[in-house]
Amino acid sequence: MAQLHGSLEDQGLSSMTFLNEVAGRYPDAVSFAAGRPFEDDFDPEDIHRYLRAYCRYLAQERGFGSAEVRRTLYQYGRTKGIINELVARNLDIDEDIHVHPEAIVVTVGCQEAMVLALRALKSEGNDVLLAIAPTYVGLTGAARLVDMRVLTVPGGPRGADLEGLAERVREARRAGLRPRACYVMPDFANPSGVSMDLAVRHALLDFADDNDLLLLEDNPYGLFHGENDRLPTLKSLDARRRVIYLGSYAKTALPGARIGYIIADQTVQDAQGHSGLLADQLAKIKSMLTVNTSPIAQAVVAGKLLENGCSLASANDAARQRYARQMRQLLTGLSARFGGASGLPGVEWNEPSGGFFVVLSLPFPADDELLEYSAREYRLLWTPMHHFYGGTGGHYQLRLCVSLVSGPQIETGLDRLHALVHDRMRRATAAAMKDAYNRLEFAPLKYSLTRQ
Amino acid sequence: MAQLHGSLEDQGLSSMTFLNEVAGRYPDAVSFAAGRPFEDDFDPEDIHRYLRAYCRYLAQERGFGSAEVRRTLYQYGRTKGIINELVARNLDIDEDIHVHPEAIVVTVGCQEAMVLALRALKSEGNDVLLAIAPTYVGLTGAARLVDMRVLTVPGGPRGADLEGLAERVREARRAGLRPRACYVMPDFANPSGVSMDLAVRHALLDFADDNDLLLLEDNPYGLFHGENDRLPTLKSLDARRRVIYLGSYAKTALPGARIGYIIADQTVQDAQGHSGLLADQLAKIKSMLTVNTSPIAQAVVAGKLLENGCSLASANDAARQRYARQMRQLLTGLSARFGGASGLPGVEWNEPSGGFFVVLSLPFPADDELLEYSAREYRLLWTPMHHFYGGTGGHYQLRLCVSLVSGPQIETGLDRLHALVHDRMRRATAAAMKDAYNRLEFAPLKYSLTRQ
Repeated sequence: MAQLHGSLEDQGLSSMTFLNEVAGRYPDAVSFAAGRPFEDDFDPEDIHRYLRAYCRYLAQERGFGSAEVRRTLYQYGRTKGIINELVARNLDIDEDIHVHPEAIVVTVGCQEAMVLALRALKSEGNDVLLAIAPTYVGLTGAARLVDMRVLTVPGGPRGADLEGLAERVREARRAGLRPRACYVMPDFANPSGVSMDLAVRHALLDFADDNDLLLLEDNPYGLFHGENDRLPTLKSLDARRRVIYLGSYAKTALPGARIGYIIADQTVQDAQGHSGLLADQLAKIKSMLTVNTSPIAQAVVAGKLLENGCSLASANDAARQRYARQMRQLLTGLSARFGGASGLPGVEWNEPSGGFFVVLSLPFPADDELLEYSAREYRLLWTPMHHFYGGTGGHYQLRLCVSLVSGPQIETGLDRLHALVHDRMRRATAAAMKDAYNRLEFAPLKYSLTRQ
Repeated sequence: MAQLHGSLEDQGLSSMTFLNEVAGRYPDAVSFAAGRPFEDDFDPEDIHRYLRAYCRYLAQERGFGSAEVRRTLYQYGRTKGIINELVARNLDIDEDIHVHPEAIVVTVGCQEAMVLALRALKSEGNDVLLAIAPTYVGLTGAARLVDMRVLTVPGGPRGADLEGLAERVREARRAGLRPRACYVMPDFANPSGVSMDLAVRHALLDFADDNDLLLLEDNPYGLFHGENDRLPTLKSLDARRRVIYLGSYAKTALPGARIGYIIADQTVQDAQGHSGLLADQLAKIKSMLTVNTSPIAQAVVAGKLLENGCSLASANDAARQRYARQMRQLLTGLSARFGGASGLPGVEWNEPSGGFFVVLSLPFPADDELLEYSAREYRLLWTPMHHFYGGTGGHYQLRLCVSLVSGPQIETGLDRLHALVHDRMRRATAAAMKDAYNRLEFAPLKYSLTRQ
């Protein structure tokens, strides 16, 4: 191990391994841990229909002959992707983002998009990335792969602390570091569940411009806002081209296609003064990383887009309502068990209006040992938040995910959570009392306590 | 550009961009450049059939219920891959390689497999990779991405120069470098077309063991040997676990699925003394790079494997014969035009028994300028070999690929090549004469020459 790359010693990695391993050992547990999308609406036949829809589009809208259709599905295809035009249409309709298809690179999920961006930006040894804590573990992983240090600033209840970020940039520059970009998830962030309000979004864009930074906007959950709650993405407000947008179809189309994308409409100039799109540079990196994204997988997502007039907003209506319902049930259930009169000191949670995640704070450590105990004794899974802080925080918090649980399962899960919390608090109280007892030095009092 | 990662300044990258760009401008040219597999045997309906074959296998052989089948195609799936068992069967039958499915990581094409291996091995700044020149550009690209230097040693007519390699290792170690592995393509190498004989293969394995190195064996073309010409892969001879095997289904199944894999059955020990497979470490890197390979794309390749009893050897019989026929036609055509009595001094080529590639040496530079001229004046495309030497050689060589050309096209292409060579030699002679004339200082002789 000592002779392999340092990323393999990453805390986040062993965390994921540990979490998967615990989940694997208790398959019958109620899981508030898994962050996968709900799958029951999917039918394997959909894949066939999507593929046919894409082939029809190639023939009818693009005028491809059968040899060209065959080549499109069979051969490698270009590095930048083959469905960029449909992605651009989708962004236009669903996100109010208007970009040229050539400013988009289709990627193997959003994870590859992150790696492309970070690989391009990590040029010198002192290049660093800013991120909001708690941070999505995929981001920290991508940064480790390219040996890029991540400086985190707690996001707080509004999702970003602009003062804190600015101070961090100054600090970093004084220390000889070069902050290149700041990673943000403005909508239903993973893991905090927090969404940024419009003022924070504008402030972030100003901050990026003032400090000559890029923003990496990651938006896998934005479509799960209610229609009236949706705020503009940073990219749709990005008049100054400060935003690189990381897109994912995993939650809104089909995780199994592994299709994501990156928008990079910034201008890059070479030594000869020629200028081009940053997207073209990212495509070059992709040519060394995966060459191209499977055209078959791209065709599947394209077919789903085509079936829905390139809008996934309405296609996800049922899913959005389901997740919102599950979120409401979870929040109501938390209130009923831990709120008001039945409240316990130190038990608190945030109340996202949708998305997948809620963060619960506890008056005792929510660590790996407690998760193990929770799984074994209560058949209940959740995610310790310290994994998202790289060990620097979140020790008393856990993440609850609502995407895969519904109806009575949520109630059962919450009952178990309630029992676990009371169990642990009793044990904590008992331990504290035992500790106090052991410290007592007046023997007659000890004797009288023991006899009670 | 100066603020982006150094890999973007890579010579090989701009080469590929340049080559694609030239090919794009002359779509009607005869192309000995493109290295894609022949596609006419493919029908888009095959994809549907493969998917159904895989679903049937899940239900019948693995006992999956319909919910499990749905989940397998729809959700992310595990990082290591979901078709490892079928890949292992395939290796057992076609390659005489016997590995546990858990020693395999399924990747997004062979390119990702290379990145995984190099990312794991590039731990310290002085870690370097050995490779045989000329070298596949995908390998140099992957190395650039992880900032790993590549030391090349000319392969020569037998595909590897063991003395040269050993000397290079000694040199590197004297210079404080740490060679970690040597990249080799023992069968129909890209771009040289050369295959290694059995003695060279054994010598390579000994060399790796003697020098405490790993071998990265890349084998996209092995199945295109005639049944009686096939030699064992390094991995099948790898009693000492020195070989990491990079597999590709692009040429033998379906490029558009982008499915490759890596075998890493070496043992890795952590600081606590626990040991596990190197494959598990590579999977961790994959979790930070692409998370997992599209299950849908994996299912397509799995279906093709299942339809053929997990052997692609016989499934590729027709393709193999086609490529061999095209190779023979090309070699015969080269002989007819440039061999024997019609021979031109300095025009030479190697004679692979199959595969995709032949290297032609010329008495004048086969550079990008000549390719541009060849495309414009003769509608003929090929690949300048200097791109595979990182600028350190191959300036008088070009690569001819036979995979996409057949019958009369080959003859037309060779006629154009012949015309190009004569054209250039005439120009070279004329230039040499003009140069000689200009150097003449005896005016009466100049005058008499001009009057002729």
